[in-house]
Amino acid sequence: MRQEVSSPLSFRDGVLYLIEQRLLPGEEQWIECKSVEEVFCAIRDMIVRGAPAIGCAAAYGIAIGAREFLAEKPDISPVEFRQRLDRAIERLSSARPTAVNLFWALAQMRNAALIAIESGNLADMPQILDQRASGIQQEDIAMCRRIGEFGAALIPDGATVLTHCNAGALATGGYGTALGVIRAVFEAGKSITVLADETRPYLQGARLTAWELDREGIDVTIIPDSAAAALISRGEVQCCVVGADRIAANGDVANKVGTYAVALAANAHDVPFYVAAPTSTIDMETHRGADIPIEERSGDELFARFSAPIAPPHVPGRYPAFDVTPAALVSAIITDRGVAYPPYDRSLRAPSHDIDEPDGPVGGRS
Amino acid sequence: MRQEVSSPLSFRDGVLYLIEQRLLPGEEQWIECKSVEEVFCAIRDMIVRGAPAIGCAAAYGIAIGAREFLAEKPDISPVEFRQRLDRAIERLSSARPTAVNLFWALAQMRNAALIAIESGNLADMPQILDQRASGIQQEDIAMCRRIGEFGAALIPDGATVLTHCNAGALATGGYGTALGVIRAVFEAGKSITVLADETRPYLQGARLTAWELDREGIDVTIIPDSAAAALISRGEVQCCVVGADRIAANGDVANKVGTYAVALAANAHDVPFYVAAPTSTIDMETHRGADIPIEERSGDELFARFSAPIAPPHVPGRYPAFDVTPAALVSAIITDRGVAYPPYDRSLRAPSHDIDEPDGPVGGRS
Repeated sequence: MRQEVSSPLSFRDGVLYLIEQRLLPGEEQWIECKSVEEVFCAIRDMIVRGAPAIGCAAAYGIAIGAREFLAEKPDISPVEFRQRLDRAIERLSSARPTAVNLFWALAQMRNAALIAIESGNLADMPQILDQRASGIQQEDIAMCRRIGEFGAALIPDGATVLTHCNAGALATGGYGTALGVIRAVFEAGKSITVLADETRPYLQGARLTAWELDREGIDVTIIPDSAAAALISRGEVQCCVVGADRIAANGDVANKVGTYAVALAANAHDVPFYVAAPTSTIDMETHRGADIPIEERSGDELFARFSAPIAPPHVPGRYPAFDVTPAALVSAIITDRGVAYPPYDRSLRAPSHDIDEPDGPVGGRS
Repeated sequence: MRQEVSSPLSFRDGVLYLIEQRLLPGEEQWIECKSVEEVFCAIRDMIVRGAPAIGCAAAYGIAIGAREFLAEKPDISPVEFRQRLDRAIERLSSARPTAVNLFWALAQMRNAALIAIESGNLADMPQILDQRASGIQQEDIAMCRRIGEFGAALIPDGATVLTHCNAGALATGGYGTALGVIRAVFEAGKSITVLADETRPYLQGARLTAWELDREGIDVTIIPDSAAAALISRGEVQCCVVGADRIAANGDVANKVGTYAVALAANAHDVPFYVAAPTSTIDMETHRGADIPIEERSGDELFARFSAPIAPPHVPGRYPAFDVTPAALVSAIITDRGVAYPPYDRSLRAPSHDIDEPDGPVGGRS
């Protein structure tokens, strides 16, 4: 085992440090965010990405904001502080629309701030918000470790596991969700082989998942996204594990575009398709996948990173960044509270999920 | 309308000229092949690609070979000529394993050569083989135009059509199969919008399909392969049209890897999934898709073309170049003899296919 990736973000003395994920694996560069606006840009421009990591970054962004407000106006009134807080929350909320963890984390920070405002304690605000943001990150790591434990029990020894995008340490407070499951399998001494979809166009699979797993000595091979169905159809994959950006109350899963195609192929060949996510990813306010806003990023992102033009000038690209996998294609949802099986409208609400395992789950069993 | 791409290959005075498809769309460079070995390398290294175009290139390769044999030994015996012919055929056959048109074209050339050998006419051999190879290319173009006519009748006015890889003029003697259908729709004055899967890693869709269609003024947008299922699920695609590298007797279709995932998504949403191919692509000797050899190309091809490393050093890539779409997911197979509907084991054998249209075809109807 080489060096574990502990976390894509850290916070010291009011500064948020983010690993520049767009430069990996070629270059490991940490950038500093010292204002709400810098955190906003880092999220929007995908310097930090991954639903739980975005939530953590936004939480630290609010702690940074409190410092900004107090530095600009040391005698700021509670009313004005609250107005500026809400503007900062609104700004950070608008950075990316699909992952619900962003809104969840900002709501947590707002609650903590409101309690402090009500107690008239503005001077201690930075410290209070630092602690809450740090708590969100530590809770996220703890949730990932529990997801790993619950998920590892589902993966047979010697399995080849296919994953899409990067739901790893880099996408979370640390440890990862889908890759947390894979790490837990590996740490338990079981043999595991990973097929990583390269995940065009940002290449989270080739650049980030492969980097994380390779550093820890976990066997990983990169495939084009389009090869997943072929390899599943040939019996070369024992199960699929992916993360999620938002899970609707009915179990529909929004995740990086391409997830749905993997789920269709897994289902066609009775290969289990698992989704791993912390409870902060479940959005009980959103009833079904069709209600989840899907981010449409610039089509120009398709044409970046190449050494020569890969398309004629003026021909547009189109990049819907996420897709929705219907609950009917999901074998189980692994959260920090256990393993939820269909019907998800019931199991996702249960305090502990793993009581609901049916006899004949969707997509076969490993 | 701008400039039509007439053909990716031409033959003059014993020299085969190929457009260097690996450099498109950035650079239009034609390379010369003057020996069997140069034609072999051009096919293996994908300077020329696309099942029917490979067949045409190999046919010209045999015509070039005849010149090589006669130049090296002007008094070559019929027996020795035949031995060298068979070695050249074997060499060209080994360039790529999946597309059956290669073997079909070489068998056509061998027959023509054997007839000439039997008539004792070695001196006229280059001319005879030139004519046969040119005939194969002209027949291919004529077949593509008939495919276009038959296929255009299936595409409604105003449709958005999704295609994978490049089954265009660049992939054939000229005009194209799947893109032949799209061209015929456009030439008939119907409105059509094309979504082109970028088709990793060689990027046939972004580089070649977009280039061909854009030159003729046909509306085209490039999407990541992984977005096809998402856009199909949102109702944004009225039908899918792809080419084929080999069609088994039961209607299973081998085509560029990623085709199967498109077919699964189309089927899940009742969107017609059409395959367009000349009869030279149908291999009655291969009973089902599982019997088709699938080329495994170097995983390093995943990492080429980028301006910075997209994967950690030593992490391998894997690139199965084709996949098999089961006949059950194919709404119709459009050939130069008409439109074949399921059951394909019967309809593909019929001299004219379009008598077999069922009431309720696979994948819905446009």
